[in-house]
Amino acid sequence: MTETLSPTERSTIRRGKDRAVTDRSALYAVLDAGLICHLAFVANGAPVVVPTGYARDGEVLYLHGSTGAASLRAAAEGAEVCVNVTLLDGIVYSRAVFHHSVNYRSATIHGVARQLIDRDAKLAALAVLTNHLAPGQWDYAREPSKQEFAKTAVLALDLAEAAVKIRSGPPGEDEDDLTPERNGLAWAGVLPLHQTWGEPLPCPELPSGVDVPGHVTARPAPFREGRG
Amino acid sequence: MTETLSPTERSTIRRGKDRAVTDRSALYAVLDAGLICHLAFVANGAPVVVPTGYARDGEVLYLHGSTGAASLRAAAEGAEVCVNVTLLDGIVYSRAVFHHSVNYRSATIHGVARQLIDRDAKLAALAVLTNHLAPGQWDYAREPSKQEFAKTAVLALDLAEAAVKIRSGPPGEDEDDLTPERNGLAWAGVLPLHQTWGEPLPCPELPSGVDVPGHVTARPAPFREGRG
Repeated sequence: MTETLSPTERSTIRRGKDRAVTDRSALYAVLDAGLICHLAFVANGAPVVVPTGYARDGEVLYLHGSTGAASLRAAAEGAEVCVNVTLLDGIVYSRAVFHHSVNYRSATIHGVARQLIDRDAKLAALAVLTNHLAPGQWDYAREPSKQEFAKTAVLALDLAEAAVKIRSGPPGEDEDDLTPERNGLAWAGVLPLHQTWGEPLPCPELPSGVDVPGHVTARPAPFREGRG
Repeated sequence: MTETLSPTERSTIRRGKDRAVTDRSALYAVLDAGLICHLAFVANGAPVVVPTGYARDGEVLYLHGSTGAASLRAAAEGAEVCVNVTLLDGIVYSRAVFHHSVNYRSATIHGVARQLIDRDAKLAALAVLTNHLAPGQWDYAREPSKQEFAKTAVLALDLAEAAVKIRSGPPGEDEDDLTPERNGLAWAGVLPLHQTWGEPLPCPELPSGVDVPGHVTARPAPFREGRG
């Protein structure tokens, strides 16, 4: 694929064009920083959106689900889907109600997903999904049994038709609002939103003496590229 | 409306039924704790999902947008929409790859949105939207001019057809995995995800001597009902 995102009709950003980012690496950065995505599909003619686990592997996005879930079935049957990952970095306080906003990084992908059937491909995708949600756990935890493997569905969606939108920095104000006569003495700025991990809460059945492993205690904070 | 959510065919939770919550107050709590929603609609036969601002006012959800945005136009024309708000509370580490999960609170609403045209109704909705995104700012910041008011679109969606799904607590393990012979000595538990506000970043044009107002410094942390 090319290094820049090549917009199609529906992936062209029209509102807030100054916030559109066409570098493919920006798409990857947003997808790699997020934890869950929102998957939209059409069921009985109406839109449905569900949150679900995902992970990126090169130029492919994997979506995780249960073979029993209607959403995964609908999305796997060759129909169009749309996936969005949004990282909220802060609230933009303006001198004018109208210019309030949020700082965010947002990626949207359109396409037709395919269900992974091949055992090795599905196993490799599950490793990527597990290590995205919980880095290091694919090797640390018990691998899926045959039954568990059969119950799990993985969809693959090419990162071919995608758009990225990013807003950062202070409010964009009207010049008039900056004058002391109007509203220039009101506070304005950004209230950054930070995501941090709390103290790990051990499972109640954990025998005494089992320490929290390093890959959990040292997990970097999510969304960490946020600039407020 | 009734105090419990009355599921319709499409708002009935089938996967993870033990996670379904039918108390209407749980719906309100999720919507009030979130900051952005994901709005899905159908455009040219294909699903589209976009993040957008929202706020709840009683039994109505307001969605905020620009009159120029295709998403708002599509959603305003009497077509079905679906809205999801998901709060991610933590990552569930299990002894088995298969039982990894996330702790979350998620609300989904289906329906047909209507655009607010009446001036007073739209102004009242904008106050609710502004104070949800940035509590206290409706009275603190400059009110919308005629032009700004005209550029802003507000959709209203009744909270009639909705579902809430919540997962909290430790991993659900297979009994076998708890034995020391199998994987009972592996660490398992929850890594809570916390949302906190950073230090307010003043707008560069701010004159010296303008303090951050109390309604910004004292803003409670979002998602605060998360239990890890």
